[in-house]
Amino acid sequence: MTTSLALPPDLDVGVLLDVALDQARTGAAEGGVPIGAALFTLDGALLGAGRNRRVQHDDPSVHGETDAFRAAGRRPSYRDTVMVTTLSPCWYCSGLVRQFGIGHLLVGESRTFTGGHDWLADHGVSVTVLDDERCRDLMAGFIERRPDVWFEDIGQEVP
Amino acid sequence: MTTSLALPPDLDVGVLLDVALDQARTGAAEGGVPIGAALFTLDGALLGAGRNRRVQHDDPSVHGETDAFRAAGRRPSYRDTVMVTTLSPCWYCSGLVRQFGIGHLLVGESRTFTGGHDWLADHGVSVTVLDDERCRDLMAGFIERRPDVWFEDIGQEVP
Repeated sequence: MTTSLALPPDLDVGVLLDVALDQARTGAAEGGVPIGAALFTLDGALLGAGRNRRVQHDDPSVHGETDAFRAAGRRPSYRDTVMVTTLSPCWYCSGLVRQFGIGHLLVGESRTFTGGHDWLADHGVSVTVLDDERCRDLMAGFIERRPDVWFEDIGQEVP
Repeated sequence: MTTSLALPPDLDVGVLLDVALDQARTGAAEGGVPIGAALFTLDGALLGAGRNRRVQHDDPSVHGETDAFRAAGRRPSYRDTVMVTTLSPCWYCSGLVRQFGIGHLLVGESRTFTGGHDWLADHGVSVTVLDDERCRDLMAGFIERRPDVWFEDIGQEVP
């Protein structure tokens, strides 16, 4: 686990990650890209949860983090919130975290894909990266089964 | 005008910008943040247009560029497309352009707000920045009238 700034010590990151993981599993059951996310306050209250819906809504703009952000809704400040995501956020979702000043990022895993979490840490976001086997297995299985959808989701050609 | 890589010389940037500007003006008439965008092929065919709908849909996730991207829909590659936007893209929208490999960015103006267009140029995107007075006036007027909504839209406190 790497942390650039601390999350509140009494915040149970496992409980937070489970909410995002449930979203990812729902997405998998729907035939979608299995990435889930959720936005919480620093005392652990859920503001909004979401999941990648590229396949379900035929919409390339709905990543897990953008869906959770939409569900959380308008706020004057996101400084005291935590974006939890099952996978290292891509540049699109990293840009969301940076632009809206989300103070904390909790990442389930970054082995199957590494996005902009180090860039966010460099720009003052508190970043915590776990290495959660459940998140890894879910992504690795999807990438193996549906490389066409996965590489489309990150704007790359299938290698 | 600054250009890191050339747009096709026969592409009329004024025609492209007018589509985004029409979206921005529609947004203004709806009482929203007046930023419009559109995605085109390199031969000038419109793939999708959109506008900021924070106010109209009470949704913080709908910026001009994300709305245009959604309207354009799923594609295996965005390399040969141009994202046209009335205002320099914020980090959220710059992240979208980078992640999905959109090859070209055309910006109406960057004086009222400067986002990530230089970062995109550093990462291989062809960036053209105009200094369009109509885009500037539309934004400057909105920022003066509704600083509360504008600064919320970019995740900042009203100075």
